[in-house]
Amino acid sequence: MSAPIDFYFDFASPYGYIAAQQIDKIAERHGRSVTWRAIVLDANFQSLERIRIPNSVMRSDYIRRDAERLATFYGVEYRTPSNLGAHTEQAARIFHWVHDRQPQRGRDFANRVMKAYFVDDKNIASEDVLGAIASDMEISAEDLQEASANPASRSRLKAEVDMAEARGVFGSPFFIVEGERFWGNDRLPQLERWLSGGPY
Amino acid sequence: MSAPIDFYFDFASPYGYIAAQQIDKIAERHGRSVTWRAIVLDANFQSLERIRIPNSVMRSDYIRRDAERLATFYGVEYRTPSNLGAHTEQAARIFHWVHDRQPQRGRDFANRVMKAYFVDDKNIASEDVLGAIASDMEISAEDLQEASANPASRSRLKAEVDMAEARGVFGSPFFIVEGERFWGNDRLPQLERWLSGGPY
Repeated sequence: MSAPIDFYFDFASPYGYIAAQQIDKIAERHGRSVTWRAIVLDANFQSLERIRIPNSVMRSDYIRRDAERLATFYGVEYRTPSNLGAHTEQAARIFHWVHDRQPQRGRDFANRVMKAYFVDDKNIASEDVLGAIASDMEISAEDLQEASANPASRSRLKAEVDMAEARGVFGSPFFIVEGERFWGNDRLPQLERWLSGGPY
Repeated sequence: MSAPIDFYFDFASPYGYIAAQQIDKIAERHGRSVTWRAIVLDANFQSLERIRIPNSVMRSDYIRRDAERLATFYGVEYRTPSNLGAHTEQAARIFHWVHDRQPQRGRDFANRVMKAYFVDDKNIASEDVLGAIASDMEISAEDLQEASANPASRSRLKAEVDMAEARGVFGSPFFIVEGERFWGNDRLPQLERWLSGGPY
């Protein structure tokens, strides 16, 4: 049995959301499994450098349009969130808490968070929104508190982000299979060729 | 007759080179023409902002590998240039000089420059290399001098880059069709859908 495909995503990334609708099916076609790994970009990465890139407003206008067009292209339900770029630490902590105990349930949580953000336009940085999702999944208030605010839960997320960084992850979505890195859902055809034919 | 597709590229961009092998065929399938437009990223763009992005070394390692893998994926002959990130002003100036007079000949020049850089590992920032290409194309030494160093030729390139910026171009390759922007060769399937089915 081959190792799982690591799927890194930030809950605030439209591209991560679009990839989340595809990666499991792609893996399944090749008899592979996927490990979902929530990370938080910006916040924790150490090795940041300042480099020149074009006007970020121009770029974000482009990305807004591109994400909508891409979702249409792939037939994925999508609506640009009002608060694009929401803080995702809380959601990521809860995700890992649930996922460490029950992977499938963690994935269910992730999908609900993404739907809340990218379909229902809810603010996933809000405790109320995350609380409602947890409640729907019958996660107790006590467990939710532990998952979202416990020091162990904070350390858990930090370790995940540190590991991602050590492995050379710098965007969302990001895939690693047999040590090979693929950045962006537009690299899924290249990843699929890797799965079917091996290294190239 | 529909307007041509604008194809922006920087001679130093591996992705621009890979796209250059594909865009004309895609356009042709839909009865469209392509206007090739050499630009110089970094150098002239005005509206730059500094934002945080991950360690550039990590990223450039990734891009080196990604470009090689992508070229293999598309069956494009490619070898990472020794001097990746060469200055391309000179090549771009000559391109526009030739292209303004004879578009097809301009494209021929562009293809020769890309081949020199991405296949034969020549330094396209070197006057000798550009001179040899011009000589092969029977461009006279006098014309070459005018194309590469004349103030009019400098202004011509600057105007092209300014116009690109005004239209929201910020990378290579970049395509504009009916005002719609597509960034990266991985957006070619989305561009093709636009050509075949109209706006979406």
